[in-house]
Amino acid sequence: MEAQKLGYETMQVHRFHHDVSEDQLDYIVQEYPVALIYNGISHAVMMATPSDIEKFAKGFSLSEGILQSLTELYSLEISQNELGIQVDMEISARAFMTLKEQRRMMVGRTGCGLCGIESLKQLYSNLPVVSTKVSPAWFNQIPAAIAQLKVRQKISALTGGAHAAAWVVKGQIVALFEDVGRHNSLDKLLGYLAEQNMDVAEGFVVMTSRASYELIRKCAQYNIGLLATISAPTSMAIDMAKQLNLTLASFCRGDSFVLYK
Amino acid sequence: MEAQKLGYETMQVHRFHHDVSEDQLDYIVQEYPVALIYNGISHAVMMATPSDIEKFAKGFSLSEGILQSLTELYSLEISQNELGIQVDMEISARAFMTLKEQRRMMVGRTGCGLCGIESLKQLYSNLPVVSTKVSPAWFNQIPAAIAQLKVRQKISALTGGAHAAAWVVKGQIVALFEDVGRHNSLDKLLGYLAEQNMDVAEGFVVMTSRASYELIRKCAQYNIGLLATISAPTSMAIDMAKQLNLTLASFCRGDSFVLYK
Repeated sequence: MEAQKLGYETMQVHRFHHDVSEDQLDYIVQEYPVALIYNGISHAVMMATPSDIEKFAKGFSLSEGILQSLTELYSLEISQNELGIQVDMEISARAFMTLKEQRRMMVGRTGCGLCGIESLKQLYSNLPVVSTKVSPAWFNQIPAAIAQLKVRQKISALTGGAHAAAWVVKGQIVALFEDVGRHNSLDKLLGYLAEQNMDVAEGFVVMTSRASYELIRKCAQYNIGLLATISAPTSMAIDMAKQLNLTLASFCRGDSFVLYK
Repeated sequence: MEAQKLGYETMQVHRFHHDVSEDQLDYIVQEYPVALIYNGISHAVMMATPSDIEKFAKGFSLSEGILQSLTELYSLEISQNELGIQVDMEISARAFMTLKEQRRMMVGRTGCGLCGIESLKQLYSNLPVVSTKVSPAWFNQIPAAIAQLKVRQKISALTGGAHAAAWVVKGQIVALFEDVGRHNSLDKLLGYLAEQNMDVAEGFVVMTSRASYELIRKCAQYNIGLLATISAPTSMAIDMAKQLNLTLASFCRGDSFVLYK
C-alpha cells in the first residue's frame, strides 16, 4: 500500500548483457485502474500511476471541463482495495449537469461511424479559446526548464517508464508530477495548480512526452498559454493548438525547439 | 489524400536554435479519426496514422478478439471524407455475437466504480494463454533486430513522432509498420501477419515503445510468444505477460535487455 503511493515497486528481473545473464532487483513503474465517480455515477476508469491521486482526480475533473473550478467540488474520498483505486467526488449541480451532457454526447459518439467522428469534433469545437498571453521571455526559459526536468523525475530515474509534466515560472520548475500516462501526469499538475490557486499567466507547462491532441485539449481547458514538449507533435495536436490559440513548442532539446503557429 | 496514405504531411514551422529563429518546411506525423464499423454497427473510433488502414482494421479485429481468423471477415471497405476514415466490415455471425457480448461487458464497465474495474479484469481474464514456444535462439537475435529498426522507420525518420512494430524471423526484420499510436502499429503488423498467413512459431515482435498492458493483451490474443520493446514495461504489463505466458523483454538497447519471467 505504501509502495503504491510512491508510484513504483521492486521486482526480481533477469538482465542480459553480452550473452551474460544476471538476476537483479529492479524498479517498475506502477499502473493501476482508478475509477472516477461523480455524485455516485462512475464516469471513467483510468489506468494511472497511484501517486498524487487526489491531484489527479481534481486535474482530470477540471481539464475534462466537468468542474469550472475547485469550488464546485464539495468532497473527495479515495478508497482502495485489491481491484484498484476508487475516487468518490461530490460535485455541484451545474457541474453534474455538464457531466451528464458530456455523457449523452459520448453515447452519440459510439453510435455510428462518421457521425460518431462528427460528434467527437463537436465535443472539441466547444473548447474555450486560450486567453492567456504568452510572454516572449518564456521562449528563452525553455532550454533551462528542459535541463531541470531530468533531475526532478524521481519515478523515471528508478523505472525509466514514467512521463512528467512540470510548471515553470521565471525559468524555474516549481512543481513536477509523474505518471505512466502523459495525460495523467498533466492532470496531476493541473490539479496542483488549482489547489495552489496558481496564476496561469505567470508560467508555462513543460512535458517529457510527445504532444498529442489530448494534451492540447487539457491545457486549453485550463487556459495554459504555452506547452513545451521534448518530443514530436502530431498533426492533430498542431491543428488543435492553432484553433484554440495555444502556443505549442516541441522537440525542445538543448538550445533548440520548434514553434508551430 | 495521397499524403494521408503516406502517414505524414509537410508544414511550415519556426525552428529556434541558440536564440536564432528560422522558417523551415517540416514533416509531421498524421493522426486521423478512424471509425471501425462491423455489420453496420460502429464499434470504435481510433486515432491513427492513415497508412495501412486495411491491415490496421484486420489486426484490430483479430487482436481485440472479435475475429478468430480472417476467414470470418467477409468484406472490408474503406471510405474517407473531410471528417476522417470509415472502415466498413462484414463479419460472420459468430464474430458478431462475440462483439455484441464484448459491448455488453463494456457497458457494465462504465456502469460503476470498483465493479467497473472488476468487469475490466474479467474481460482480461478471458484472454487465451499463449501456447507458442519461445525459441532460445530468439534472445540472441534481439540486438540485431533492434539495430535494424531505425533504418526501417521511414515515418519516424521524417517526423520523429511515430512508433514502430516489426516481425523478426531468424534475426531479420521481415515487416515493419508505423503509427502515432503504439497499439495501432502493432495492429497493423498483426493484420499483415494474418494476411500473409505467417506462422507465429517462427518469429517474434519488436517494438520501439514502452510495453503497456494493451500490447501484451493484443500479442497474447494473436498467440505471439515473445515481445521485445526498446523502452520500459509497466507493472500491469509484466503481471499480464506472466499470467498469459507471454515472454516479455524490455529495455532492449545495444547488447542488453531485461527479461521479466
